[in-house]
Amino acid sequence: MGAGGSGEDQLIARLFEPIARHPGALGLKDDAAFLDVPAGHQLVLTKDALVAGVHFFAEDPPASIARKAMRVNLSDLAAKGAEPLGVLLAIAIPPEMGVEALEAFASGIGDDALLFGAPLLGGDMVRTPGPFTVSITALGAVPVGGMVRRTTAEAGQAIVVTGTIGDAALGLELRLNPERPGFRALSEEQRSFLADRYLNPRPRLGIAGALRMHAGAAMDVSDGLAGDLAKMLVASGVAGEVQADRVPLSPTARAAIAAEPALMENALTGGDDYEVLAVIADVHLDAFGAAATAAGIGATEIGRTLEGEGLVVRDATGAALSFARGSFSHF
Amino acid sequence: MGAGGSGEDQLIARLFEPIARHPGALGLKDDAAFLDVPAGHQLVLTKDALVAGVHFFAEDPPASIARKAMRVNLSDLAAKGAEPLGVLLAIAIPPEMGVEALEAFASGIGDDALLFGAPLLGGDMVRTPGPFTVSITALGAVPVGGMVRRTTAEAGQAIVVTGTIGDAALGLELRLNPERPGFRALSEEQRSFLADRYLNPRPRLGIAGALRMHAGAAMDVSDGLAGDLAKMLVASGVAGEVQADRVPLSPTARAAIAAEPALMENALTGGDDYEVLAVIADVHLDAFGAAATAAGIGATEIGRTLEGEGLVVRDATGAALSFARGSFSHF
Repeated sequence: MGAGGSGEDQLIARLFEPIARHPGALGLKDDAAFLDVPAGHQLVLTKDALVAGVHFFAEDPPASIARKAMRVNLSDLAAKGAEPLGVLLAIAIPPEMGVEALEAFASGIGDDALLFGAPLLGGDMVRTPGPFTVSITALGAVPVGGMVRRTTAEAGQAIVVTGTIGDAALGLELRLNPERPGFRALSEEQRSFLADRYLNPRPRLGIAGALRMHAGAAMDVSDGLAGDLAKMLVASGVAGEVQADRVPLSPTARAAIAAEPALMENALTGGDDYEVLAVIADVHLDAFGAAATAAGIGATEIGRTLEGEGLVVRDATGAALSFARGSFSHF
Repeated sequence: MGAGGSGEDQLIARLFEPIARHPGALGLKDDAAFLDVPAGHQLVLTKDALVAGVHFFAEDPPASIARKAMRVNLSDLAAKGAEPLGVLLAIAIPPEMGVEALEAFASGIGDDALLFGAPLLGGDMVRTPGPFTVSITALGAVPVGGMVRRTTAEAGQAIVVTGTIGDAALGLELRLNPERPGFRALSEEQRSFLADRYLNPRPRLGIAGALRMHAGAAMDVSDGLAGDLAKMLVASGVAGEVQADRVPLSPTARAAIAAEPALMENALTGGDDYEVLAVIADVHLDAFGAAATAAGIGATEIGRTLEGEGLVVRDATGAALSFARGSFSHF
């Protein structure tokens, strides 16, 4: 770990050394870490920053904040077909954040490092007069040339998503507006499910290998299905059509939307799904679906890419839907 | 680059795509970058975060902030004997920071990326209600097993520093207390020199190879010579003695200290030198010195490691000096 004096060193030692077990982390006692990249592989690198009050609620449990910071980065690795090698962590700590909260945060990092095979290699811990800020760099590996791109979708292929869409966006909306009719229709257990999906993304590392073998293009859904798909189509120079009624919904999301159809827009355009959105040639579709099923994740074809440009989302009658916002933006 | 909607995408495109020329950066249009590590090499990884008002002055020129953020990380690579491969950058932008300042910041990153061969590979740009915060992850490479450690100094070796010590600490003190007698004794040009050394660290990448060949242990001096050396001695399980009058000072630092001897403590314990502190066996000393001279950096033996523990800094009479603070700490 980096700059700072002996007070910082002691805090780092207490909090983070126990979870930095990778030999290259050198017990966080050096200025840098070392890491071997497996022969025949290249690195995949991603770095996402999260700010209290912007990307998470300052009052969220610190272990949940840690998990979210780990998982939004690991989700990028998964969508690129990469296997995790490790993470670097920088945190900026506000004055009001005490040692107990930091301990809980560190344990959240450590638990996920073990769970996902992404050891803590190093980083930095600094003070800030501002909000708690977390920056994670995740390092992964793919066979050379194997990284799955966002820009390589072709026309005439299937648009596929893993898991279910909208649970996290509904979990956020539930926190912001708990009295909406769609949420009043849910059981306590169903509300907890949505809240948990917002707090604890699940990086889809189990299908990284299948993406490398079968996907023409992929990205993770972090800013909302409609907006992220639109981005991928633009980046690839193709058009796309999605059938809204084919978008996979959890039973809970389905119940909320049945009680309040307007929540469908939250599901389709809200952020934080952290599912994988892939464009897959028909010849690979069955094999990818089988791999996704075997991984316990599941994958659903929701539409097709086409020649041209633009994204159309159609309802069950074939009418084109329009959304107040294309995707979630922090700007 | 990571999360965020189309407003962010456009700002990233405008600011950072032009400086992300490495093929693995994919024009910052994907969720991740890829990077090859040269055959027979392993990665060296470091990540330092800087917060406005803590690690730099919010009113510093944005290009200087960018350079400092790049260089404190590249300095870690240099001290570990690593050659830069690239950087990832995350910034959290406060509301009052306008596009012009961001443009100047991006150009500072781009200039240093070219100057030091450390291309921008990717990262994230988010909003914060707090101070401007910069987190950089620097990736470098060493031949496998070649990273120079902090923990491997042995007794009976030379303690060496590159360049000159204390200029940056005096530059900081000059900003905080410009009326001190030591500074009133300086010319305008001398004051500018000190101010520049605080703003613009110079990572000593030119001696990375010589460190790998000759150094028993090394680290960069970021938190003050005395404190950082003490840390290295503890980490290595040896003692050390330094002759204060052998510590290399610039003519400007020497003039300020001559006019106000108390400033010597700032020089020896203040932060931000970003020189390399190395412990070198006598048989390697001449070769290392020659390499440092050839690199235009210079290196000076300031003391010796000993059996035992602790650091003693002696003045010209042999008396042990004591300092009000061992090193600079942000905590």
